[in-house]
This record gives sequence, C-alpha cells and structure tokens, in this order.
Amino acid sequence: MRLQMNDALHQDVGRLTISCADRPGIVAAVAGFLAQAGANLIHADQHSSDPEGGRFFMRVEFHLAELPERESDIRTGFTQLAEQFGMSWQLSAESEVPTVAIFASESDHCLLDLLWRWRRGELAMNLAHVVSNHERLRSDVGAFNVAFHHIPMDDHEAGEQRMLDLLAPHAIDLVVLARYMRILSADFLERVGCPLINIHHSFLPAFAGADPYGAAHERGVKLIGATAHYVTAELDEGPIIAQDTAAVSHRDTVADLKRLGADLERSVLAQAVRWHIERRILPDGRRTVVFR
Amino acid sequence: MRLQMNDALHQDVGRLTISCADRPGIVAAVAGFLAQAGANLIHADQHSSDPEGGRFFMRVEFHLAELPERESDIRTGFTQLAEQFGMSWQLSAESEVPTVAIFASESDHCLLDLLWRWRRGELAMNLAHVVSNHERLRSDVGAFNVAFHHIPMDDHEAGEQRMLDLLAPHAIDLVVLARYMRILSADFLERVGCPLINIHHSFLPAFAGADPYGAAHERGVKLIGATAHYVTAELDEGPIIAQDTAAVSHRDTVADLKRLGADLERSVLAQAVRWHIERRILPDGRRTVVFR
Amino acid sequence: MRLQMNDALHQDVGRLTISCADRPGIVAAVAGFLAQAGANLIHADQHSSDPEGGRFFMRVEFHLAELPERESDIRTGFTQLAEQFGMSWQLSAESEVPTVAIFASESDHCLLDLLWRWRRGELAMNLAHVVSNHERLRSDVGAFNVAFHHIPMDDHEAGEQRMLDLLAPHAIDLVVLARYMRILSADFLERVGCPLINIHHSFLPAFAGADPYGAAHERGVKLIGATAHYVTAELDEGPIIAQDTAAVSHRDTVADLKRLGADLERSVLAQAVRWHIERRILPDGRRTVVFR
Amino acid sequence: MRLQMNDALHQDVGRLTISCADRPGIVAAVAGFLAQAGANLIHADQHSSDPEGGRFFMRVEFHLAELPERESDIRTGFTQLAEQFGMSWQLSAESEVPTVAIFASESDHCLLDLLWRWRRGELAMNLAHVVSNHERLRSDVGAFNVAFHHIPMDDHEAGEQRMLDLLAPHAIDLVVLARYMRILSADFLERVGCPLINIHHSFLPAFAGADPYGAAHERGVKLIGATAHYVTAELDEGPIIAQDTAAVSHRDTVADLKRLGADLERSVLAQAVRWHIERRILPDGRRTVVFR
Repeated sequence: MRLQMNDALHQDVGRLTISCADRPGIVAAVAGFLAQAGANLIHADQHSSDPEGGRFFMRVEFHLAELPERESDIRTGFTQLAEQFGMSWQLSAESEVPTVAIFASESDHCLLDLLWRWRRGELAMNLAHVVSNHERLRSDVGAFNVAFHHIPMDDHEAGEQRMLDLLAPHAIDLVVLARYMRILSADFLERVGCPLINIHHSFLPAFAGADPYGAAHERGVKLIGATAHYVTAELDEGPIIAQDTAAVSHRDTVADLKRLGADLERSVLAQAVRWHIERRILPDGRRTVVFR
Repeated sequence: MRLQMNDALHQDVGRLTISCADRPGIVAAVAGFLAQAGANLIHADQHSSDPEGGRFFMRVEFHLAELPERESDIRTGFTQLAEQFGMSWQLSAESEVPTVAIFASESDHCLLDLLWRWRRGELAMNLAHVVSNHERLRSDVGAFNVAFHHIPMDDHEAGEQRMLDLLAPHAIDLVVLARYMRILSADFLERVGCPLINIHHSFLPAFAGADPYGAAHERGVKLIGATAHYVTAELDEGPIIAQDTAAVSHRDTVADLKRLGADLERSVLAQAVRWHIERRILPDGRRTVVFR
Repeated sequence: MRLQMNDALHQDVGRLTISCADRPGIVAAVAGFLAQAGANLIHADQHSSDPEGGRFFMRVEFHLAELPERESDIRTGFTQLAEQFGMSWQLSAESEVPTVAIFASESDHCLLDLLWRWRRGELAMNLAHVVSNHERLRSDVGAFNVAFHHIPMDDHEAGEQRMLDLLAPHAIDLVVLARYMRILSADFLERVGCPLINIHHSFLPAFAGADPYGAAHERGVKLIGATAHYVTAELDEGPIIAQDTAAVSHRDTVADLKRLGADLERSVLAQAVRWHIERRILPDGRRTVVFR
Repeated sequence: MRLQMNDALHQDVGRLTISCADRPGIVAAVAGFLAQAGANLIHADQHSSDPEGGRFFMRVEFHLAELPERESDIRTGFTQLAEQFGMSWQLSAESEVPTVAIFASESDHCLLDLLWRWRRGELAMNLAHVVSNHERLRSDVGAFNVAFHHIPMDDHEAGEQRMLDLLAPHAIDLVVLARYMRILSADFLERVGCPLINIHHSFLPAFAGADPYGAAHERGVKLIGATAHYVTAELDEGPIIAQDTAAVSHRDTVADLKRLGADLERSVLAQAVRWHIERRILPDGRRTVVFR
C-alpha cells in the first residue's frame, strides 16, 4: 500500500524494522516507545518463526511530526530498548530513498520495466547508474536521463574492479541484476558492500544454472517461472524474495518460453525491488520474511 | 497460519479483535495491556482505513497461560481500555469453536467440501445441522455423522419458521449457504441472529441474480468467478469476503462453465468460512477487512 | 506459438480463416484443397458453436512454396469451394503485416508496452501513427521512431474528422485504443472502416463506465481486472477478446488499484492485439472465438 | 469441452488419435477418410513438434451414425491409410470407457476427489478397484460402492504380486496413484501392462524425492506446486501431464504447505486423469502433447 498524503508529509513517515529472539513484551515495548514519542502507527506487521525459541520480526510504519529534527533523539532512545531485547534494527524516513545501481547485459525487458516504474513513481529510489557489459542498451537508458556505463567483462577481474571504482563514491544501497549475464565473484560481492537482487529465469530450485528455458522445454514442464533472490556466493542459492509461474503447453517452443518468461521476469523483479526499497524484506537465514 | 502446539495449549490461545476510530496509541495500549497480563503475542495485524479520520482495525492472537481461568479478569480489565478508545471488540479462546449450520439444496460440491475439511480438522467448528429443501443429500451428510434436516420450502414462510425453530436451541454462530437456492426473507435474516455467508457463482458485481453461468456464456466473457459474501437483505449486495476467477474459452459450454465454476465455488466458500471462524474478518461498512 | 523458420520463408506461410454454417465435410474439403495445392499444414484449429445447426470456425496456418506467386490462383480456387459451403473467409500471408494506429491519452503504460513489444518483434504490424488528445507522450513515442499526432478533442466532431483525414491515406487495418479516454462516436466507428480494440480497466461486465477502480474500491471487491474488447457503438458492450484479474485486499487504496490494474491492462491489451494481428480471433456474434 | 448430446448418441461419437512422422497431406487424408465414411468432425486438434522432420500428432472427435456397427469396417479402412503414413493410432467410441484402478495410502484428499468427480459424471471411467496399503480409507471408499482392497506392503514383492493378481482379470486400462506412498518396482510397472499416473507434491523437477513440503519450507520458496505425470522406472522422471502452483509466504509452516498443497494435488491429478480417459494425451518421448 502507498500512503496517500502530500509530499511534505513523507519526511515525517518513519520505517522501523526489527529482528530478535522472540519473547513476550516486544510489541508492547516498541509500540509503547513510539506512542510515548508521539508517533502514530500507520502499519505494523510482525512474525515469529516459532512461538517457542523462534526469531521475531517486526516492521512498523509510523507518522511522527518533525521526524527529521527528532530522528537523532529517537535513535538514542531506541538504542536502549534494542539492547534490552538484543535487537537488530533499522530506522529510516520514507523520504530517505535508497541509491540503486542496475546491471544489465543485452536483454532490455527487466531494465526498461524498472526504469519506467521508477520514472512513474512506483519505485522510490535514486537511480545512480546503469552498468552493462554491452553497448546495446545505451540509448534506451539515456532516454530516461540515467547514466549508462559500458564495462566490458572480457577481463573479468578488471571489469569487476572498474565497477567497484564506479560505485564506490555513491554509497550504493542496492545493486539490481536485471538479467546481467555474468557471474560476479565472491570477492566482488563482499567488496560491493550492499545487497544484490538477481532475477533467475526459472522457478528455483528447478532449472538452476544456465539456459533454464532450454532445460524446461527439454523436460516438458507445463509451467515456467521466474525467481527474484538475493545474491550469495553460492550461485542460485540465495534467499528467495518473489516467484511466479505461467502455464505453457506442447505448442510452445523455446522461443515462446523466453517470450512468456520475459513477462514474468520483469514483474517478479520489479516486485522484489519495490519490496526491498520499501524495507519490507527481512532476512531469516536462508529465507526471507516479506511484509507486504 | 495455524499455530502448531499440542491441543492442551489451544485453550490458552486467545483472539482479540478490535475496531474503533483511529487515533495515536491504540496498538501501544492494547499490546501494553496484554504484556502486563503476561500474554505473548503470536500474531498481530492492524489496519487503518485512512490515517486521518479513518477507522482502525486490529486482530491479535496471543498465548496466555491459564486463559480460561483468567478470561473473566481479562475481560473486566479490557472493558475499561475499550471504553477509553470507544472500541467494538471481541475476545475468545481458540478452543471456543463456533457452532455452525449449513444450508444446501441439491448441489453437493460446496457442502461435501465443507464437511470433508471439517472432518480433517481444517475448519474448527461445531457442525450442528445441515438443512436442505431437498432429500437428495441426506445420505452424503449422514456419512459424516452430521444431522440432516429436510425442510421443504413450498410454503416459504412456514419453512423459514421451521428453520428458526430448529436453530433456536443451539446458539448458532454462523449459517453457511452452500449453494442454498432459496432466497431468505429479511425477516428471517434478522431473526436468525447470526451472520450468514453465501457463495455466489459469479465474480460479483458481474452477473448478480439467477443463472450467472448462462449469462456469462451469453456475454462471452473469458473468465468465470465465484464470490463469498455476507448475506444482507439486499440480494447479492452484502460485504464481499473472498473471490476467485478461472479462465474459460469459446470451447466451454454452459455445462463446462458450471463444472469449472463448481471448483471455484467450493474453494472460495471454504476459504471464507475458515477466515470467519478464525475471526479473521472484520466488517467495515459495505466492505470487509480480512487479516490473512 | 511462433514458427521458427528463417525470414525468407515467412512469405510462404499463409493463414486462412473461415466461418460458415456447420455441416459434414468442411475440414476434409479445406484440407484436401490445401493438400492438392501442395501446402503443408502447420496448425489447424476449428470450432463448432453447436454440432447441430451451429456455426463452424476454422483457422489454418500452412506452408506453401512460392505462396506470393501462387496466391492469386489459390484465391480463385478457394472461392469456388467457399461458395459451395457459404463461407466467409480471409487468406493472407504471414508476411502481409497489418497497418495499425494507436490512440492514447495521458497514461503511458499500455502505449509503451505495445511500442516495446513491437520493437522487439512480438507484434508483427506496421505502426503507422500514434494519435493522442494530449501532448504528454510525444517524446516517448518519438524514441521509438513512430509518428505522433496531437489531435485535441475539445471540439469532438472536428477532432474525429482530423483523425479520419489522418488515417484515410494509410489503409489502416486496426485501431488500438490504449487507454484513450474519449468516447468515439458511432459515426466515427463506421467511417474509420476497420476494427478497433479497446482496453477497459475492469472485468467487464462489472464496473462498466467511468472510474471502475473507484467503483471497485467502493464495492469492496477482492479482485480487480481488465478486459480487451472490440469497440461497438454500445459503450463497453463489444465482443470480449481477453480478460485477466489480480487479487487485492483491504490494504489497497484506489491509487493501489490503479497501479496494480495498469499491469493487467497492458498485458491483456498486448495479448489481444497480438491475437488479432495473427488472425487468431473470429467474431461470433456478440462473442469471439480465439484460436490460441 | 463436453459435447452435449443425449446418452444414446454417445456411442456414435468416436475418438481417433494419431502420431507419425510429419509430412504434407496427413490432415487431408484423415479428414477425407472420415468425410467419405459419413462422419462429422466435432473437434480436431493437431500439432507438429517441428515443421521440418518433426513428429505429427492429431486427435479427432467425430460423430458417425451407427458407429458400433460400422467400427470394424472403419478400422479396416483406416489401417490401410495408417500404413501409408506409418501412423501409430487408436480408435475408440466415447461410450467405451476405460477401466481404472486407484492406489492410495493414508491421505484421502486425492482419492475422495476422484471418487466424487466420478460419481457426478465428470470422469467417464469404470472404477474397478481401490487398493491401499492401509485400512484407513475403507469406509470412505465403501460409501461410493467401490471395492476396497487392503494389500499390506511390508513384504513388498508379495504385495506387488497380490496387486497384479487382483488386477489381472479386469483388463485395467489405467492405474492412478492417488498419493500412494510406496515405490513400485520396475518389474511391477512392466507387468501391470497399462499406464500409471502419479501425483507428485511439488512442481517437478524441483523437490523430487521424499518430503517435498519440508524441503520447500527449508529452501524458503514463495510458491508450492503439484505435478501429475506418467510413471516410469526412473522415479519422478516420467512425462509431465499437468502442473499448478500456489503462492505461500513466511507465515506458512510445513503443515500449512501440506494443507494448501493438498488442494493443488487433488485438482491437478483429477485434471490429468480426465485428460487421459478422454484420450487427450499423446506421448512425445519424455514429454506429452495434451489436446485440451
């Protein structure tokens, strides 16, 4: 849901995400803290992975007059509460939009859909860069007034270094792999210092690896899928954020699967990016908690 | 989600549902009250129809040791808090399962699906009676060891009176119209004294009224649907609980639409009944808030 | 399905669509005629609205060496057969792509999706013109190297005349209304001389007319939809081509419904346009037969 | 689609399925043969796996007066045509319903759904036997007046032999594994002499093997699925007939996945069985062609 309030008020909307070991009184403590600070809850979602001995997750969207001026005090106060419960937590104003870089290769469907949703205001992010190992999408990106960088990957190590140099000055909060067809090294993943979201063109864990549409056709499945997931050093094994499938039949060639799959890929990836930048996703080991 | 705990603990799980005018501090007050009472929140969902001047809805599932013994005290305490905020509220233990009557006519698909889900433990309800204006489904119902009552409706007023007489001694909490093909009078609806859920065989508001599959075929739609809704005196106008659709084509005859629609009807109705008896549905004027 | 053959062969792929009163021997006659001509069937679909006294529909995709050179003879020969069975029929080579005009207003989602699918080769059409009653989308259209015409509709009659003057020299085969928000007169529909496909932002016949998302929110439905249909003089009453729905909840505001609905609208419209230009749709009175 | 004609006419409806190497003239030859015999086509579907050097598949539903009396002549005549094209083919009257055995274990959802659809006329089959390695479902099966056989599988080889002895006298056309939890030996599969359809509780090839819901929960997928497939000696590797998925979230426990999955399993299996007994499925190596 999007809150409908005029733009001036966005800076007074805060988002607090929390995870800690589950125990009684957490919601009361958090809600009490916010109420005492004068905040009004807009949404609150919580989840416990197990009522006994599990992990507790919470996301609160609240309105607090003059949040920017008061954020520092809120942080100080909440730090005490967080220590008491052993919480990992993040606080941000809705107006603090994350800075994002998109990596793409030659396919345009995921990239253009993200650019278009960003332009129309569906994705509240600063779009710092588009990076590609090909020249092909330069003019498409230019039409959205976004910087396009061609970084060839023939020399993989040098390419990764160039990407890191490019991103370093920008305090990137998220890298989106919008059908970026090169495998990034574990070293790169560590050094880039922010989460990466990838779109895989199958319903993982089915057809992990390369050419999933060819493999799906060969196996004769009756549905194809797409999976958005966080990137980890183990290929195709990162925490899954969103998945969707579409029905196919014996009539569909590999080319048809690719065409139909492209529609799934772009919508699933856009959904995952949206949830991430709205801080709806909390990691839970190999899984994700998604507060929609 | 179903909490997984052994049966002995179900009686210590409480459900609290609240609605009131929105204002700051409600969640803190409710969560604080429950924490002070020693309760541990299992789930909490809330919704505000509008952050300014809207209505606030909340559903809390909590665990409280010795809830049955302490329920009276909890009620007394919460009444004060509720008055302060002008709340409508309901409190019940998960172990207090509602008493339900099902009305059916000649079609068996919705009725049998409810009976089967009830038998396998998906629907936590006491199934008091099945009422039908036909004899046809008697043996099917008997196989589930549920009382079957044939109440002919040739004399509509007398039929309704017989139904009221039958239900009166049982403190019925819910009547489910599982493809019951007679229109119940406004007088009956008032006197029965509990909510009624109906399944309509179209995606309302399309094809309200009789013979929706015939009308859908005549119009040439490419999808059919089913709608579960609360019954009000205005036919097919009650608050919608759940809806689903399925794709159809020029190949499908009216008979095909009925067959395909039956699968939608039974799943949509079962979902609505499940949500109702788990107290997941809060009325919001002509609409519903459903905490899934 | 897309046939996978090199471009040179596309001109040898023919499409024959037929409708007539059903009677024995039609398929044998048509298949026999094509076999005798040396054609190889790629696909054949047929449908009878009723085995007794119904209407028969058929679509054949075939390969015939040197089709362009032989098309005239084929037509002459088939005319005889068609007269015998009282057939309405159309024959065209896959390489004869239709000429299409798109009308849009201020929303870009349907228009841009069509332009993008056309550019990537999903929609085999000549895109002659984009017409809009606003200036807003000019540069977006320009990026695809398609002519953009701003025709204001303050004077509706004059506007329609300007549109007819614009289209007249181009032998337009199809007009697509991609969220064009002005109602075209019956006179215009007649004079434009080709079919028009419109996208309506609801699951018709529900919420016909203006502001369907507002009406859907007010009614509290649990799904929203989109409908692509041929345009007739009766508003929102033309033959339905494609429909889809998506689940929504109490959390979704009217703005959310519009955002979610936009995704449905663009995919449903693109599907309908694709089917039309591949000659997969045969009219059947108020309904359509769609050979997918 | 189901043809709507009175029962007396069902015996005059024939189904012809064909597969052979693709080449020009097949449809003309088949349709010509049937037309000459006086048959009227109700449906005809065809598919070529590749226009050049591929395999051709066809299914024809036709009406021929006095089909039972004329079937022998038709067969003789068609044999000649089939030899000419090197066809594999099957001809049967719609009234010749296959004889089916269902194997189940302790879960009732798939079995009861098949029994119920069979009773209401959705599945045109003779239901010869229900076999189970447990006693649990005996009375449920009895309510449908179907023979129930408890064949324990502690001694696997002896159990399989008992099953073969049971089925031998009945000319079984199909065995349906409705959540039968024992692995049948390659020897059994060969000796039973008819196709077997199994329902696997995952979207294969994901989560092949045992405990797919546990594995799905552990992996944190956002959708679960079910797959109906023909059984081959390689476990979970047989040709896929039908698949479907449903969305799940972090809230869903393994128990929830099982409950939600049960609804998928029963609908996917029923669909596959329906298609098989209506002769809509043609094998294509490791894949299937399904003419819906």
